[in-house]
Amino acid sequence: MGGDHGASVTVPAALAILDKQPELKLILVGRRERLAQELARHNAAESERLVIRHAGEVVEMDEPPAQALRGKKDSSMRVAVNLVKEGAADAAVSAGNTGALMATARFVLKTLPGIDRPAIVTTLPTIRGHMHVLDLGANVDCTPEQLLQFAIMGSILVSATEGKERPRVALLNVGAEEIKGNEVVKKAAVLLRASHLNYCGYVEGDAIFTGDMDVIVCDGFVGNVALKASEGLAQMISHFMKQEFQRNLFTRLAALVALPVLRAFRRRVDHRRYNGATFAGLNGTVIKSHGGADALAFEFAILEALSEVRNRVPQRIGAELAALHGQGQPA
Amino acid sequence: MGGDHGASVTVPAALAILDKQPELKLILVGRRERLAQELARHNAAESERLVIRHAGEVVEMDEPPAQALRGKKDSSMRVAVNLVKEGAADAAVSAGNTGALMATARFVLKTLPGIDRPAIVTTLPTIRGHMHVLDLGANVDCTPEQLLQFAIMGSILVSATEGKERPRVALLNVGAEEIKGNEVVKKAAVLLRASHLNYCGYVEGDAIFTGDMDVIVCDGFVGNVALKASEGLAQMISHFMKQEFQRNLFTRLAALVALPVLRAFRRRVDHRRYNGATFAGLNGTVIKSHGGADALAFEFAILEALSEVRNRVPQRIGAELAALHGQGQPA
Repeated sequence: MGGDHGASVTVPAALAILDKQPELKLILVGRRERLAQELARHNAAESERLVIRHAGEVVEMDEPPAQALRGKKDSSMRVAVNLVKEGAADAAVSAGNTGALMATARFVLKTLPGIDRPAIVTTLPTIRGHMHVLDLGANVDCTPEQLLQFAIMGSILVSATEGKERPRVALLNVGAEEIKGNEVVKKAAVLLRASHLNYCGYVEGDAIFTGDMDVIVCDGFVGNVALKASEGLAQMISHFMKQEFQRNLFTRLAALVALPVLRAFRRRVDHRRYNGATFAGLNGTVIKSHGGADALAFEFAILEALSEVRNRVPQRIGAELAALHGQGQPA
Repeated sequence: MGGDHGASVTVPAALAILDKQPELKLILVGRRERLAQELARHNAAESERLVIRHAGEVVEMDEPPAQALRGKKDSSMRVAVNLVKEGAADAAVSAGNTGALMATARFVLKTLPGIDRPAIVTTLPTIRGHMHVLDLGANVDCTPEQLLQFAIMGSILVSATEGKERPRVALLNVGAEEIKGNEVVKKAAVLLRASHLNYCGYVEGDAIFTGDMDVIVCDGFVGNVALKASEGLAQMISHFMKQEFQRNLFTRLAALVALPVLRAFRRRVDHRRYNGATFAGLNGTVIKSHGGADALAFEFAILEALSEVRNRVPQRIGAELAALHGQGQPA
């Protein structure tokens, strides 16, 4: 399960969510000794619902994906994805190296027929609730056809997990007018207009947070930069706010009075609640947790996996694509 | 000067900054009657330092740039840029239609030798101060050579207006490792490493707000989306904060106590202080104010123009490019 903090985060997260989700069973993949030790530290042990599966190698956070894929066939990441492939697990959740996890997932599980490359989807908070954006970095150069595939995958993900019948889908662009954008976006717009999706046109970057759309589609370069820029801004705002409230005795007292309000505010924008990005377009469910996730955040990533398995997201995407290509019926 | 609010913003901004900058002279370009009326409303009139120049047409905010360029030769925007061309003004500041202003500026002033296309540069706040990012939407598809030109322009802008000798320049990318990114960014990195600039490598989106760099370079699509996404997030945060402080009697009282702190915080992230984007790479200084700017924000846009004129930014960029192409010496 990995990540920056390893078992010290994943084990308490696993124990906490098993308490809340009585149907859930978890397989902890990693060094048996380390995992057993962490379980013991929490007065827990293996059980019918919580099994350790030993994996001797670890993919480092900065290891090149190709090297991890070729050289570490007994890494926790590889073993976890193999379990999904074999049907021994319904989903894999990892906080490890994103590139290596994506390369491993693609190699082991393969993409669904009709999907060129998987996309990374995340949920983000908005003024009115939340929305989904993809791709977030798996694909730095995209064709218009790939953007259409992303739109289909995002739309099915939202309708399957949230019961929305016609999710509103938009293309991220530098303006709302038809003449705006680069060639790829313009051609993708033509494909989206001709599709059966609820395509609502172009939106600009600020629309990510307004809540007017359910799914916003972009190439991985743009999506990654927009997400990281937003993270950077949020950190700066939080930094300034702390500084101002710690300036002197009066501001510290003001902070004390305002504490419940500031806490309520912080809960609303708590990024941990949105942890767990989906690798969409694979023959199976793989969820990527933020590398720096704490136990609560990692719980949310497991919850996302559970929701996608329960709602048969990969199967629905597969069926939809098969129908599109005249090989079957949509789910 | 235009924008969403027209003379009701630009006139008070002009009067306020003339008071603060004794060397400054301003030409108000627009409908004479309207401008004179607005001056009178502020108990002011034309003077040696404040002249009205009549222009009969207005470019609408949603008008296609080509149409504005061809059809409105007496627009305030066109007349203002003409004044720069003729040497009657040192800079033009407008809050009008960005695309039309860029098309007009390029057509009238032309780009500097060695510059394919101008870029839009803006200043953004960071944890440690502020930084510059370009391009913000003038160029949705860029070549590696154009990204190099952006880097040169950004670097000169910072060294000229802030006296920094070796501004730190970075390329915006989806990861800091050398293998990350698309082909254009990778080729631009090769050009930047070979240049005389203080090139510091790739940065991710969050670096926009950390203050580790002075200049961050990206294509206009990515820059525009990152900026707008950040604006959207800032609006969402502000909205949530207001909601939480207005929730009930207790939170309203807490807001009252925390008010001075919240005001100090707000001042630090006040986007009005960063108003005024530079159209870099032209034979002359053109500054674009946000369309929705208020008088204080518009003052900052005029101040940016003043700083660039005083520091001879276009001349320095021109000299640097001439030196690069073996036709002269850098400024």
